[in-house]
Amino acid sequence: MPNAIAYISRDTDGLHWKRVLEAGLGPLDYRTLDTLGNTDDIEVALAWKPPHGLLRTFRNVRLIVSLGMGVDHLLADETLPDVPIVRIMDEGLVGQMSEYALFWALRHHREIDRYAELQKQGQWKPLDFVDTIDRRVGVMGLGTIGQDTAAKFARLGFPTAGWSRTARTLDGIETFHGSDGFRRFLARSDILVDVLPLTRETRGLLDAAAFAALPKGAYFINMARGGHVVDEALLAALDSGHLAGAALDVFNTEPLPAGHRYWTHPRVHVTPHIAGATNPRTASPGVIENIKRLRAGRDLIHRVDAKTGY
Amino acid sequence: MPNAIAYISRDTDGLHWKRVLEAGLGPLDYRTLDTLGNTDDIEVALAWKPPHGLLRTFRNVRLIVSLGMGVDHLLADETLPDVPIVRIMDEGLVGQMSEYALFWALRHHREIDRYAELQKQGQWKPLDFVDTIDRRVGVMGLGTIGQDTAAKFARLGFPTAGWSRTARTLDGIETFHGSDGFRRFLARSDILVDVLPLTRETRGLLDAAAFAALPKGAYFINMARGGHVVDEALLAALDSGHLAGAALDVFNTEPLPAGHRYWTHPRVHVTPHIAGATNPRTASPGVIENIKRLRAGRDLIHRVDAKTGY
Repeated sequence: MPNAIAYISRDTDGLHWKRVLEAGLGPLDYRTLDTLGNTDDIEVALAWKPPHGLLRTFRNVRLIVSLGMGVDHLLADETLPDVPIVRIMDEGLVGQMSEYALFWALRHHREIDRYAELQKQGQWKPLDFVDTIDRRVGVMGLGTIGQDTAAKFARLGFPTAGWSRTARTLDGIETFHGSDGFRRFLARSDILVDVLPLTRETRGLLDAAAFAALPKGAYFINMARGGHVVDEALLAALDSGHLAGAALDVFNTEPLPAGHRYWTHPRVHVTPHIAGATNPRTASPGVIENIKRLRAGRDLIHRVDAKTGY
Repeated sequence: MPNAIAYISRDTDGLHWKRVLEAGLGPLDYRTLDTLGNTDDIEVALAWKPPHGLLRTFRNVRLIVSLGMGVDHLLADETLPDVPIVRIMDEGLVGQMSEYALFWALRHHREIDRYAELQKQGQWKPLDFVDTIDRRVGVMGLGTIGQDTAAKFARLGFPTAGWSRTARTLDGIETFHGSDGFRRFLARSDILVDVLPLTRETRGLLDAAAFAALPKGAYFINMARGGHVVDEALLAALDSGHLAGAALDVFNTEPLPAGHRYWTHPRVHVTPHIAGATNPRTASPGVIENIKRLRAGRDLIHRVDAKTGY
């Protein structure tokens, strides 16, 4: 019976995952991209941006585990075998994402870059402050990450709203939904945080009209997917001064190509898709649980709906 | 009967305070440093860094309100009249202080400055991350600000400890106290946040021995008082690489003198005492309450104990 676990990613050597999975499941027939061997042995594929068409060649695979919370990297492969896909559900990654959003929001809110300029000039000059209750944060996407992020902003005292495809009710968070609510949501968001999944519906959602709908001086934080953003529209909104700045962790093409204007734009901070890294310590319990459930013929958890794309 | 309120500060023109106090107390005989008039009329002095000896000349003053949470700026004046001192208790200021600490801690924790260097070089290079549960935060001072700050770090998942003069018990926070606990507290603090009051006991507390007691690579955030720090010891710890960096909002001399090494040190971030600004919106209710109590002959709130110095 095929029972090998294959780690399909070039991000790490995969030994971390081997260790945490064996701690829960016992010794494994564990393969990586460089040690695939006979792919008929592979029962479970742990995948992050797998080479197009590769998973189709695993004839006996029964489960695909996305090593990120987003699954657009899998669904983009139309040859994907017709087996269940589960995502990792990783409180460590969720916490990292919140940290990332809080960091850039506070950097903008507290005018840290202006103070850095003053330090360079050797100038001691307190600036007028903006009251936290006057800095409205908007979180696009209210899944696990969006809810955690929004709750943390709200606890710091920022008036916080969330936007999602379908209606949601959350404690202490003003919610908007659908295309009707989108413009109103944007119009009240001084800091916009994107954590949406990338789907047919969200691709290119942040275009010139969306950026224009934000208040003047708004700040944009993208820790979701670059595919949401029409880059020319974002750059134009930054150049005109309508947006105060942007912190971008994700891009239409990754790695961000050499020479792209984002690299050198004075009001763009670029990070290399590190807002939330999958953390084997916190992500492995769900994966172990799913492999046990698969082998026992029980319902899986954290399943992905290929129709909605998340 | 003397009933004028005098705003004794050069930080602002004082009109904000006039507005919020009159909203609670009705029209006031309101004076500022430039419109003191007959100082025999002054009943209440709202003071931030008053000129030495000035308050002594207010012969009928009955209450001194510190416009900051710290009162060392008042107690340094040995001619201070013998009337009650109350501090502001300002949730807006407390929230700002927590924001400041979180911001610099996250900047260090997430290696944002290394990513900024990589951006300058046009390099896409994810770095290994430090798990939040492996980054220990230590908060010196467990008054209102310290408790709020520590709780916010703990909620983000950082193992958080606090140190105070006398023993305290707090939910989810490991506590240390006294000089016995100080070294042990420092030894487990990868990020050290100072929010202590400045008193005879805390002046110069952070000396070479204290910095040496921190783990190698620790980060120091001072949003309390510069007087806690032996500057030469901090600079030596930074220069040797024992400390990874420091964010300093307060200094032994303010404004920080031109030419001071902090201005140009590559691993020191200087801000001009802006971590927590008194916010009339949130600070005024307590001040209004105290003026009403004073006039009704009732016990004051938020009183300062001149013996402990806070």
